[in-house]
Amino acid sequence: MRNTLVNPGVGELTYEIRNIVTVAEKLQVHGLQINWENIGDPVAKGETIPQWMKEIVTKALMLDETYGYCHTRGVLETRRFISEQTNDIGGAQINPDDIIFFNGLGDAIAKVYGNLKRETRILIPSPTYTTHSTGETAHANAGPVTYRLQPENNWYPDLEDVKNHVKYNPSICGITIVNPDNPTGMVLPEHMLREIVTIAGEYGLFLIADEIYNNIIYNGQRTVPLAAVIGDVPAVAMRGISKEFPWPGARCGWLEFYNTGKDQRFREYVNSILNSKMNEVCSTTLPQKTLPLIFTHPEYRNYLGERVARYEKMSNIAYDILGKVPGLLVNRTNGAFYMAVAFKDGLLTNRQSLPIPGREIRELVENITGGGGVPPDKRFVYYMLAHTGICTVPLSSFSTPLQGFRITLLEKDESEFRKVLRTLAQKITEYLDS
Amino acid sequence: MRNTLVNPGVGELTYEIRNIVTVAEKLQVHGLQINWENIGDPVAKGETIPQWMKEIVTKALMLDETYGYCHTRGVLETRRFISEQTNDIGGAQINPDDIIFFNGLGDAIAKVYGNLKRETRILIPSPTYTTHSTGETAHANAGPVTYRLQPENNWYPDLEDVKNHVKYNPSICGITIVNPDNPTGMVLPEHMLREIVTIAGEYGLFLIADEIYNNIIYNGQRTVPLAAVIGDVPAVAMRGISKEFPWPGARCGWLEFYNTGKDQRFREYVNSILNSKMNEVCSTTLPQKTLPLIFTHPEYRNYLGERVARYEKMSNIAYDILGKVPGLLVNRTNGAFYMAVAFKDGLLTNRQSLPIPGREIRELVENITGGGGVPPDKRFVYYMLAHTGICTVPLSSFSTPLQGFRITLLEKDESEFRKVLRTLAQKITEYLDS
Amino acid sequence: MRNTLVNPGVGELTYEIRNIVTVAEKLQVHGLQINWENIGDPVAKGETIPQWMKEIVTKALMLDETYGYCHTRGVLETRRFISEQTNDIGGAQINPDDIIFFNGLGDAIAKVYGNLKRETRILIPSPTYTTHSTGETAHANAGPVTYRLQPENNWYPDLEDVKNHVKYNPSICGITIVNPDNPTGMVLPEHMLREIVTIAGEYGLFLIADEIYNNIIYNGQRTVPLAAVIGDVPAVAMRGISKEFPWPGARCGWLEFYNTGKDQRFREYVNSILNSKMNEVCSTTLPQKTLPLIFTHPEYRNYLGERVARYEKMSNIAYDILGKVPGLLVNRTNGAFYMAVAFKDGLLTNRQSLPIPGREIRELVENITGGGGVPPDKRFVYYMLAHTGICTVPLSSFSTPLQGFRITLLEKDESEFRKVLRTLAQKITEYLDS
Amino acid sequence: MRNTLVNPGVGELTYEIRNIVTVAEKLQVHGLQINWENIGDPVAKGETIPQWMKEIVTKALMLDETYGYCHTRGVLETRRFISEQTNDIGGAQINPDDIIFFNGLGDAIAKVYGNLKRETRILIPSPTYTTHSTGETAHANAGPVTYRLQPENNWYPDLEDVKNHVKYNPSICGITIVNPDNPTGMVLPEHMLREIVTIAGEYGLFLIADEIYNNIIYNGQRTVPLAAVIGDVPAVAMRGISKEFPWPGARCGWLEFYNTGKDQRFREYVNSILNSKMNEVCSTTLPQKTLPLIFTHPEYRNYLGERVARYEKMSNIAYDILGKVPGLLVNRTNGAFYMAVAFKDGLLTNRQSLPIPGREIRELVENITGGGGVPPDKRFVYYMLAHTGICTVPLSSFSTPLQGFRITLLEKDESEFRKVLRTLAQKITEYLDS
Repeated sequence: MRNTLVNPGVGELTYEIRNIVTVAEKLQVHGLQINWENIGDPVAKGETIPQWMKEIVTKALMLDETYGYCHTRGVLETRRFISEQTNDIGGAQINPDDIIFFNGLGDAIAKVYGNLKRETRILIPSPTYTTHSTGETAHANAGPVTYRLQPENNWYPDLEDVKNHVKYNPSICGITIVNPDNPTGMVLPEHMLREIVTIAGEYGLFLIADEIYNNIIYNGQRTVPLAAVIGDVPAVAMRGISKEFPWPGARCGWLEFYNTGKDQRFREYVNSILNSKMNEVCSTTLPQKTLPLIFTHPEYRNYLGERVARYEKMSNIAYDILGKVPGLLVNRTNGAFYMAVAFKDGLLTNRQSLPIPGREIRELVENITGGGGVPPDKRFVYYMLAHTGICTVPLSSFSTPLQGFRITLLEKDESEFRKVLRTLAQKITEYLDS
Repeated sequence: MRNTLVNPGVGELTYEIRNIVTVAEKLQVHGLQINWENIGDPVAKGETIPQWMKEIVTKALMLDETYGYCHTRGVLETRRFISEQTNDIGGAQINPDDIIFFNGLGDAIAKVYGNLKRETRILIPSPTYTTHSTGETAHANAGPVTYRLQPENNWYPDLEDVKNHVKYNPSICGITIVNPDNPTGMVLPEHMLREIVTIAGEYGLFLIADEIYNNIIYNGQRTVPLAAVIGDVPAVAMRGISKEFPWPGARCGWLEFYNTGKDQRFREYVNSILNSKMNEVCSTTLPQKTLPLIFTHPEYRNYLGERVARYEKMSNIAYDILGKVPGLLVNRTNGAFYMAVAFKDGLLTNRQSLPIPGREIRELVENITGGGGVPPDKRFVYYMLAHTGICTVPLSSFSTPLQGFRITLLEKDESEFRKVLRTLAQKITEYLDS
Repeated sequence: MRNTLVNPGVGELTYEIRNIVTVAEKLQVHGLQINWENIGDPVAKGETIPQWMKEIVTKALMLDETYGYCHTRGVLETRRFISEQTNDIGGAQINPDDIIFFNGLGDAIAKVYGNLKRETRILIPSPTYTTHSTGETAHANAGPVTYRLQPENNWYPDLEDVKNHVKYNPSICGITIVNPDNPTGMVLPEHMLREIVTIAGEYGLFLIADEIYNNIIYNGQRTVPLAAVIGDVPAVAMRGISKEFPWPGARCGWLEFYNTGKDQRFREYVNSILNSKMNEVCSTTLPQKTLPLIFTHPEYRNYLGERVARYEKMSNIAYDILGKVPGLLVNRTNGAFYMAVAFKDGLLTNRQSLPIPGREIRELVENITGGGGVPPDKRFVYYMLAHTGICTVPLSSFSTPLQGFRITLLEKDESEFRKVLRTLAQKITEYLDS
Repeated sequence: MRNTLVNPGVGELTYEIRNIVTVAEKLQVHGLQINWENIGDPVAKGETIPQWMKEIVTKALMLDETYGYCHTRGVLETRRFISEQTNDIGGAQINPDDIIFFNGLGDAIAKVYGNLKRETRILIPSPTYTTHSTGETAHANAGPVTYRLQPENNWYPDLEDVKNHVKYNPSICGITIVNPDNPTGMVLPEHMLREIVTIAGEYGLFLIADEIYNNIIYNGQRTVPLAAVIGDVPAVAMRGISKEFPWPGARCGWLEFYNTGKDQRFREYVNSILNSKMNEVCSTTLPQKTLPLIFTHPEYRNYLGERVARYEKMSNIAYDILGKVPGLLVNRTNGAFYMAVAFKDGLLTNRQSLPIPGREIRELVENITGGGGVPPDKRFVYYMLAHTGICTVPLSSFSTPLQGFRITLLEKDESEFRKVLRTLAQKITEYLDS
């Protein structure tokens, strides 16, 4: 190649969430049985798709038009359906043209951050779901600007920290919230959401609300969609069907833009997002065609309610077991299906370990965790994986200096889940004592 | 908003191919009947999906796993199936990890250009399909660098022009070919493809081959996939099912990388593309699951053969009618389902017109075409649309200084197609004489 | 021109400090007598160069070598002389290679900011001398990040504001201080300088200290050079002869780098600055050759002392007169030879004026100040200029939201200065009441 | 430092022309006597400044105003003087505002390239003076785009190559010419200059003409300033006094802009250059004040004539001696005071050498030339230096794939120059045969 093709360092990005799968698969080949507590894919964890939903989908596929392109913004009837749902909340009022469909939220998130000019920064939570942090930092070619979620206080955001970042960093033009949150399972109380809206309004910012888990809330908690409280602040809400139907393989998510009429700069930005989608013609047709039918199906609420009830149960099992382990900061999760657990400051070292049987696996883990800059929770996660087969994700890979791990609450077998959690609890203590 | 969010000018991009739809829809509201000769969507033009294909798809959707995420690179069995197909050609040898699936070729194209560093340029054909030109120019923040397809010579590329651009512009690191071509319908003879490979090899470039129409060739023409002749030059082939099954609504296309092992810089680049996909988790699962089943179904060849035969017939109808119109440069199309027709140099002016009944439509068209910088073929296309209801696309919107228009060969009703073409032929003469 | 040559908006930058000269010159042509209180050029304001200094300079010019290039870093003997002076302070210890000469501080400042990568920000004071703010914002392609100098508190920096900007904006890698300050005449107390060094050390930043006025301090105030208190924090001090000898026409200033040995990233940066100078071969030879001779001449201290005494006197005259004007925030200046005066919040409007005799001048001023986005202090400055002939600079042109004006203390004729100040005082009241 | 301060790779730039000085100085310390044939500083090579010139300069320094700032564009009287000189040529007509003074041409060149937007490229000669190539490539963050000067044809530019680069690379917006040329000593015939102007006019480009050596032409050759033939093509000429008076230590050069009134985009660009200078206040006052007095002094023509005659003599000595050495491509130089000699293709290897006495020097040279990517002419130059003390510059450091070396014609002692050249001739043969 006569020139280099990418900027220096670009080829070296790593995605811990997905990298660990590669390693776990190698361990599987060596005979280890893996408990996959790392992946947010309900289907992979055994969720079954109900028969009535399959019927809606297959019926749609008997129509030729389901095979064709749809409108660049998305299927009009579906956008009309969603905009009415949103308008019924009684807050922000939108029309179908305020909605754009994407190939999953990953696509939407990449375009939301990627269309901002390089010098414009978005304040994101820490810890954060990696697609947000990677999207934001890639567009800016710089490290993330983050506000703190507090492990000592239910993972609620430190609103003082939010406000100070906004006040003292004039390049910040927006704030991202994930509600309910991944990786922490935190559900944002309405009054906090309102305070964030107030900060945005006061400083002339827009808001990005990832609400993909907005219908998965339990333990008696409540929140509201951003639309309910946004007032006249420009904002974009991110929603999708991957987690809720659940149908992640469909790659179907959408953006709702609030108050585009009230800010010229925001409107230019929304237009640039539409242009990037236009250049790819459109997004997936099938899930859009079926979306209103599934949402309004008489079985839908029951179906979702049962799943949410199960996440609630698993949330409490995990809390009850891990909450008793010395050295951990544990919060009861109230939404989504992840749980982030932090170690107390300074407990993890780069010398702790658990026994790994088999020379090949041992050397593999030692190679991965032996390097100079490896965070101690990555070391922990790999030793735990190789010793027990329990696959988690290091917390430090979610743009946070905190050390810990993330598990999912997707296991369908309650007794299996209890067993995994108990093993984890016991082995954490052994690891810390090693 | 306290700062601007996008760079100046970003909000003003226009996509003529899709913009004209907006206008045509308005004309429809005013009672005009539209002949949609602008859109490359076979389904929208009445193509029916065969029953056996629908059965494969709906059967796949009865399985829960079809609803889940797939591997970031794509479903392994499908990548294995494709890599074997490619290896059977007898040229480049690849393995499943040399393939990455995307949400349609639009997504793939955006990532192929978007992951290049800003200073690296790709030489693209002129005229070019807009997704290529927009992708390339957006990544570089500069106008396109193009080689000439020759309207006076079957739209074949001017290879001297290719070579000179490569030789005299050291920032060019790759060459894009679209074979068969959109918007011209040109099919690249094998010897020309080999010459382009030779140029790339000689100057240390890589090749990008958009082969989405590679199985839609007729009039007895032949070409070969890039894999057949690539030798040890690094390259990426772009393939998909949107046009061939046809199933554009599935958003399913893929990249095949050749000779990644032979160039470190190319490998870094491929890795950066994989990283951007990883950040979006994965692409659509359903079409990947069904792809091998459809391709290998006993009816598939017949089905595709019938469609190709129809495109051949329409190609010849269009050529026979438009080829006789004075003032046009017309080539028989031999692949894909588009036809690009150029006006002879200087024939179009900014004063020609056709009568438009109805004041509202007339004023709309006058507004759109009246501005200072409007290319004359855009004026032609809008007057033709408003006068006859025939919706085409201005050739100048495909990154070329040539003036003309593009139509599709997708009309299923032969006599309707003849009627549209005859109207077009007659009205072109009237327009030129006006 | 086949392409645009500069980025959009680049041609529209304005420099109020120098723009107003253009207007004042036009007024002069129309017969107005101008009091130039805007320019920081002692020579233009009548400072005489002492005979002994002229003799040193002309003697140097009898030597052929004074006409040749010097070393890229600057004349070795001079750098040795300066490094010994700096080392004698007893703080940072440097050698001649830690010094680079430039063609005036303007050149040095442009290279200090211009060599930083785009994403790295320097926190600058507000108000700030425009060469700093323009250099910093041009390199970043974004608005400035500033800390507040307090008009209600001797223009001392708000150290809490400094710390919060550093803490909440991770792209900040350095802090600029101007000591004594332009445009405010503030002299930084040693303990505040130490606190800023502590903040830099704590957060891993480097410091930029513009010390061009470091030997022009009065009213019994004291400060220290950064070298005295820098400890092991990386830093660059900016010094020069333009204001002190005074010899601005020589274009001679230099950078002193402290603690380059203690930080690899800082060393790379210093090296990139050296490279940009190397590409211009070297800086002016003559002033470097004479610098040690002038500094060590027996008359030098007296000469400088007399000038400083005069600035002290003018400082107090200005303070005594303007300090009594209602509506102003006035601080006694203690160093350099500028005075920045702010209006109390909200006092200035876009409707106030002073009578302007002569239609031509009146129309010129109305044109300049009539536009939508004109800050009210710019309006004030132009009306004052046209009404009285007193030429000042609007405070808002120094990267501050404060409204006010800057004058110099360079007038040599005490009674003339009193007259100008009294006129200013009276007319301010009239303007505010208009 | 909490972040990196410069982009990766920025700290590693090397300037061979000035790097070799560092090494030669080390050799001097080890007792080697150096013949400095590398530096274009007449003063350093023993040129004496005539008494009448010194008197003009010292007289100017008796005036206080010579110590002050001058106008941002430069001293008005001097710009008036120069603009009249230029207008007298009878081509481009300018006024004083079409001239901007800089701190030497290095400063001017840096701003000419640095103010172009990143995507705009200037076609530069190869070989080229490094300040041009570094300025152009730094602004573009990419390798240079060059046209070929022909060593087989008097180093005349290959005009076909110029035209093809312009035609096939749409990012090229300007062409740089250095006339007379550094490093080749080539003088551009008027008809070639006219052809380059024609190409620029035809493709909508502007020209950059470095004319610093325009009054140093000999061997009966002739050329014209760009002003004479520019017609209505936008252009910038670069002139200065460093080489001609000679007074490089004054840092005084200027830009003349032609046809700014004829192109809006060019005007924006010129304005952006003015803005960067405005931010540094102004350039050196003293040389500007004296420039008209020196140029119009009755002794000036004789003085310059004598120097030029000496360069002519040295040019012919060098040509007569080196022209007979087998393996070299040698052209008689006709202007400036450099000579570039290329080796015939493939003659230099990475194994040739000359004996180096003294272990320390030998090891130093082996270290510098032993690395993998060292061009063979750099090896040649260092072995020649260490073996003979003759200090030249590798030709490959002037942005050319050619291998060779550059010497200067500045030696004042004719017999010494013959001796040096004969040694060089003999040792080249030994080196090639080694």
